[in-house]
Amino acid sequence: MSKKPLVGIIMGSDSDLPVMQDAAKMLEFFGIEYELTIVSAHRTPEKLFEYSKKAEKRGLRTIIAGAGGAAHLPGMVASLTALPVIGVPVKTSSLSGLDSLLSIVQMPGGVPVSTVAINNSKNAGILAAQTIGVKSKEVRKKISEYKKQMRKEVETKAVKLEDIKYEKYLKEMGK
Amino acid sequence: MSKKPLVGIIMGSDSDLPVMQDAAKMLEFFGIEYELTIVSAHRTPEKLFEYSKKAEKRGLRTIIAGAGGAAHLPGMVASLTALPVIGVPVKTSSLSGLDSLLSIVQMPGGVPVSTVAINNSKNAGILAAQTIGVKSKEVRKKISEYKKQMRKEVETKAVKLEDIKYEKYLKEMGK
Amino acid sequence: MSKKPLVGIIMGSDSDLPVMQDAAKMLEFFGIEYELTIVSAHRTPEKLFEYSKKAEKRGLRTIIAGAGGAAHLPGMVASLTALPVIGVPVKTSSLSGLDSLLSIVQMPGGVPVSTVAINNSKNAGILAAQTIGVKSKEVRKKISEYKKQMRKEVETKAVKLEDIKYEKYLKEMGK
Amino acid sequence: MSKKPLVGIIMGSDSDLPVMQDAAKMLEFFGIEYELTIVSAHRTPEKLFEYSKKAEKRGLRTIIAGAGGAAHLPGMVASLTALPVIGVPVKTSSLSGLDSLLSIVQMPGGVPVSTVAINNSKNAGILAAQTIGVKSKEVRKKISEYKKQMRKEVETKAVKLEDIKYEKYLKEMGK
Amino acid sequence: MSKKPLVGIIMGSDSDLPVMQDAAKMLEFFGIEYELTIVSAHRTPEKLFEYSKKAEKRGLRTIIAGAGGAAHLPGMVASLTALPVIGVPVKTSSLSGLDSLLSIVQMPGGVPVSTVAINNSKNAGILAAQTIGVKSKEVRKKISEYKKQMRKEVETKAVKLEDIKYEKYLKEMGK
Amino acid sequence: MSKKPLVGIIMGSDSDLPVMQDAAKMLEFFGIEYELTIVSAHRTPEKLFEYSKKAEKRGLRTIIAGAGGAAHLPGMVASLTALPVIGVPVKTSSLSGLDSLLSIVQMPGGVPVSTVAINNSKNAGILAAQTIGVKSKEVRKKISEYKKQMRKEVETKAVKLEDIKYEKYLKEMGK
Amino acid sequence: MSKKPLVGIIMGSDSDLPVMQDAAKMLEFFGIEYELTIVSAHRTPEKLFEYSKKAEKRGLRTIIAGAGGAAHLPGMVASLTALPVIGVPVKTSSLSGLDSLLSIVQMPGGVPVSTVAINNSKNAGILAAQTIGVKSKEVRKKISEYKKQMRKEVETKAVKLEDIKYEKYLKEMGK
Amino acid sequence: MSKKPLVGIIMGSDSDLPVMQDAAKMLEFFGIEYELTIVSAHRTPEKLFEYSKKAEKRGLRTIIAGAGGAAHLPGMVASLTALPVIGVPVKTSSLSGLDSLLSIVQMPGGVPVSTVAINNSKNAGILAAQTIGVKSKEVRKKISEYKKQMRKEVETKAVKLEDIKYEKYLKEMGK
Repeated sequence: MSKKPLVGIIMGSDSDLPVMQDAAKMLEFFGIEYELTIVSAHRTPEKLFEYSKKAEKRGLRTIIAGAGGAAHLPGMVASLTALPVIGVPVKTSSLSGLDSLLSIVQMPGGVPVSTVAINNSKNAGILAAQTIGVKSKEVRKKISEYKKQMRKEVETKAVKLEDIKYEKYLKEMGK
Repeated sequence: MSKKPLVGIIMGSDSDLPVMQDAAKMLEFFGIEYELTIVSAHRTPEKLFEYSKKAEKRGLRTIIAGAGGAAHLPGMVASLTALPVIGVPVKTSSLSGLDSLLSIVQMPGGVPVSTVAINNSKNAGILAAQTIGVKSKEVRKKISEYKKQMRKEVETKAVKLEDIKYEKYLKEMGK
Repeated sequence: MSKKPLVGIIMGSDSDLPVMQDAAKMLEFFGIEYELTIVSAHRTPEKLFEYSKKAEKRGLRTIIAGAGGAAHLPGMVASLTALPVIGVPVKTSSLSGLDSLLSIVQMPGGVPVSTVAINNSKNAGILAAQTIGVKSKEVRKKISEYKKQMRKEVETKAVKLEDIKYEKYLKEMGK
Repeated sequence: MSKKPLVGIIMGSDSDLPVMQDAAKMLEFFGIEYELTIVSAHRTPEKLFEYSKKAEKRGLRTIIAGAGGAAHLPGMVASLTALPVIGVPVKTSSLSGLDSLLSIVQMPGGVPVSTVAINNSKNAGILAAQTIGVKSKEVRKKISEYKKQMRKEVETKAVKLEDIKYEKYLKEMGK
Repeated sequence: MSKKPLVGIIMGSDSDLPVMQDAAKMLEFFGIEYELTIVSAHRTPEKLFEYSKKAEKRGLRTIIAGAGGAAHLPGMVASLTALPVIGVPVKTSSLSGLDSLLSIVQMPGGVPVSTVAINNSKNAGILAAQTIGVKSKEVRKKISEYKKQMRKEVETKAVKLEDIKYEKYLKEMGK
Repeated sequence: MSKKPLVGIIMGSDSDLPVMQDAAKMLEFFGIEYELTIVSAHRTPEKLFEYSKKAEKRGLRTIIAGAGGAAHLPGMVASLTALPVIGVPVKTSSLSGLDSLLSIVQMPGGVPVSTVAINNSKNAGILAAQTIGVKSKEVRKKISEYKKQMRKEVETKAVKLEDIKYEKYLKEMGK
Repeated sequence: MSKKPLVGIIMGSDSDLPVMQDAAKMLEFFGIEYELTIVSAHRTPEKLFEYSKKAEKRGLRTIIAGAGGAAHLPGMVASLTALPVIGVPVKTSSLSGLDSLLSIVQMPGGVPVSTVAINNSKNAGILAAQTIGVKSKEVRKKISEYKKQMRKEVETKAVKLEDIKYEKYLKEMGK
Repeated sequence: MSKKPLVGIIMGSDSDLPVMQDAAKMLEFFGIEYELTIVSAHRTPEKLFEYSKKAEKRGLRTIIAGAGGAAHLPGMVASLTALPVIGVPVKTSSLSGLDSLLSIVQMPGGVPVSTVAINNSKNAGILAAQTIGVKSKEVRKKISEYKKQMRKEVETKAVKLEDIKYEKYLKEMGK
């Protein structure tokens, strides 16, 4: 895998970083180069333009954009690049992210944003990997392995739960 | 009143025109010069930038922007100009404009959009007039007169309804 | 700038003050004279009438009104003055301010309220400044400078985040 | 029963009349004197004040107020009179009356509005009758009889449905 | 005022008591006799029937019923008595009382429930007093006085806020 | 299968019959005896009591109840019988059945209502058959066959669509 | 009652166990054999298939499935078995379980899921018992006794509340 | 471009075809091979398994899945393949597709579905093209050209609107 980043992770504010870090972690897990920075649609619109316009030339193949409230970042990036853009609706204090979700997903015909669940930047990272996987059998294989690993973790827990019964299992969970 | 437009009315698509025309009509009513065109945040982002950046220099004093769904136009204009921006959430077929409303009104701190009711571009026109009225006693007077006229219309209807009673009134309404 | 207030900030209850103080702070930041008091649509309706009726004569040029729940204050002020009225929907404990938002923004044709995001009285203060800016080049300039300052703050954070990477950045944020 | 009206039915616009007529019809059914007119919180605020302030003295004992959208009429009447106020949320084209409902029902402590279902002015009429019934055994009796009549209508339909079976019943309904 | 209760306050569960006590307190404030107990639509349906059927004969003139979730208590009482029934939607942990509100307010034609705001049993108490006030000038007078007292409290706070300014006022509020 | 009905289908009003007939049709399809009538929680509460109390003794094994708005019928039946009760939320004109759904599904602990999708009385019929199937291998077998038949219908359509392509398929659908 | 489980309780993740344990407890209370394990629609789809396909043969008569967010477990089990499936929408952090509820209850015609209230796995347990009760008079009797016990508990609380009055009752509740 | 399909378009029912055809049309426009068929999560779960499991081996690189209501198809496909899955929430008659949207977008961590706007299968087609574009400069170029074409269409309309003014423009639109 080349050293030039294939995925750009951007967010509207550093207050979104605790949520958005999971996208970075998943890409690290899959061994995909990424870059991560702050681009605000509303406070740095010029940077938004420049970033989006140059993304493809700079070698990026997909962009993950997280934002909350009247979340315009993912859609505006999508309007300025031909690359697929993944939007992460960040949870908000008053409307719990329903505003973010609708602001991101309800894009008009012609300019899609690939939207994931509220606050689920982990899934944005996986989706970016799946997108890169379109041209990399290696990455597709890693994703398949990741899915197997998830399956095993659930199965291990299921066996344990069936074995020790729910009262004890809950006690071990500290509930 | 000067011939140079003081108010810009823009919309994301000509399909918004049947809704947005009411803003123009109200400004005509108040004798305020305006311009009206299509600027799409998602399909003509460069024009959005240019329009917003030059608005103040060109003499505009407020901008009315209407859009539907993941409605980014009003907020993006607001991010690119120091002028007050009035947003009109256009009704959508699936979510009835709740998506448009939240995408427009829930702007982050620092970049307000002055939002009116769903599809209510008439009120956007009045609000633009009130904003221009801040520097024009003449406009303020016209708005006061408009309010009086509204009051009179309601009072006339009330007198008639009290007079002929509701059955007859409804019949005359064709209900 | 004259000593007579140009902006009136009112709220339905002193319990709204922690939210509404940000409007005052923004106006102080822009050097615009304001006044601030409590006017309750439901508990002091006579004061609401008097305040709204005299506002223009007293020199006010815009009014910011904050209220929660069945929030009638902004709309009733708007019905009683020709000045532009900015409404701040205050977050509520049961419906998170969705009730406040709809009660303020969904005004009928003829009587607009310029609505900002839930609890975002900071933006109400900026919008009031933008409105005053219609007749003051000085204020418009200050707003442009404020936008530049916001941009710089975001850019500084972005540079830092790119520099020290997200793990360290988060640690410094205390997350 | 005296000729002076005991119940006032008011609405924000004559466009609410097709909905609000049912309140009048129910009061006619129960033989309770009422008056009906248009009072707009937003377009005739002075009339709203006068009407509400004089209502008790004029002999009214309860007021039914219907309005849609940012529906302020019932709450503002309630703020200006000690009489019980019944609010009818009128259905709206964009948000189906959810805005009207929340604008009417979510009143702050101290100023209740007795709210009925969206568009259900028939129930507002019955509720007004029940309220008048507090001081009139005759009215209470009529309400009891009305309830019996409703019961019988349902029972008659039930017997018929059990008798002729659903296919035939639907055919007779024209479905 | 007689010793026999005029108002019945019932709730679906003793977990609603912290919310419902305010209705009792308001009735005490207005000097209106009331009774208070638990009647569950879903767990004591027979008691619900008996309570509702006998309410009018026992001298009650209005019933306040509070319930949460699929809140059937107010509507079922209303189906079984000719008295006016006031419903209090109790806030729920998952849907914040929106479920309670819709379950109470959206009654079908013929059987109204007079609904107040979520958790606002204080307003239910005032509404009950207003309803009793229909036959008692004394109670109407007390309600008018209560409204004056509310007005004075707001005015006193307003004067203080104007006097000491918001920073100091907030400090005294402990914010 | 005995001639005595095993399933009772009830609805709050004959206006619910066009929706509720599908439950009857599914039970006919599965050869399960049922009865169908009107029982209104709000207009025939006594009948609701009697019907629910006697249901088990009369041989019913499950009850399907459909209602709209503040839909209390399914929950009240459930409070009065030990039999499983299936609730069908009927679509409403203003809130599209969201009110019906929440009024039916959000039952408190101790008194469940088995809720199906809005207007989906067909599924209520199938669920009733599945419930009867607990004691009847024959019914379980019929349900398995029904599922196979559904599968085949979809597969046939899929083959056709793959064969003639979407343009022609749509034309044959009349779209 | 046989030792082979009649009810299967499954959940998408062990994080749902604190919610789902109540279903198990209710079945223990009614003396109905059950099994409990983890089956994830999204992470162990093969296990989902196998579990659902073999359920009837293994002697299960109903399945309780709990899941949150885009909750596909109950509906997918229902698509793969002829047994009645009870779905428990688990509360989510961003949308409070409204997403879970709609993902579970809004099943298409042909494949019902019997849905209970958000987080109310206790009711799922009771509903499973009622379903088993269709073929067991003994279980039906236990459910009737359970309902009587609930009634008595409420009545005891009501008597106490009437006796010691609400102030003292609240104090004993620690409120 | 090879003759083997790179994109699979599936839907839960042929009633979704009028909506889903736009995805096919966009892929035809971009010259990307696709296949289109019906796969129902609830009525043909075995086919769902087989289709999803074999998709990657058969050469597909992304899958578009459309479904409505409790829409499980996209998420279940995503659980069974490592390919990126694009979900199209189909509008529903009762909840307008809000149920479909939440059922598709709110996927748990580990299993993303790339969600587009309600009924917007056109955008799903574009997103699929952008995803294929990751490994095809030719496709990326076509997408850039498509964006230019969209821009030109808007600009042409804008010029016309500015030229002939809104009254005439509306007349030509037939409004």
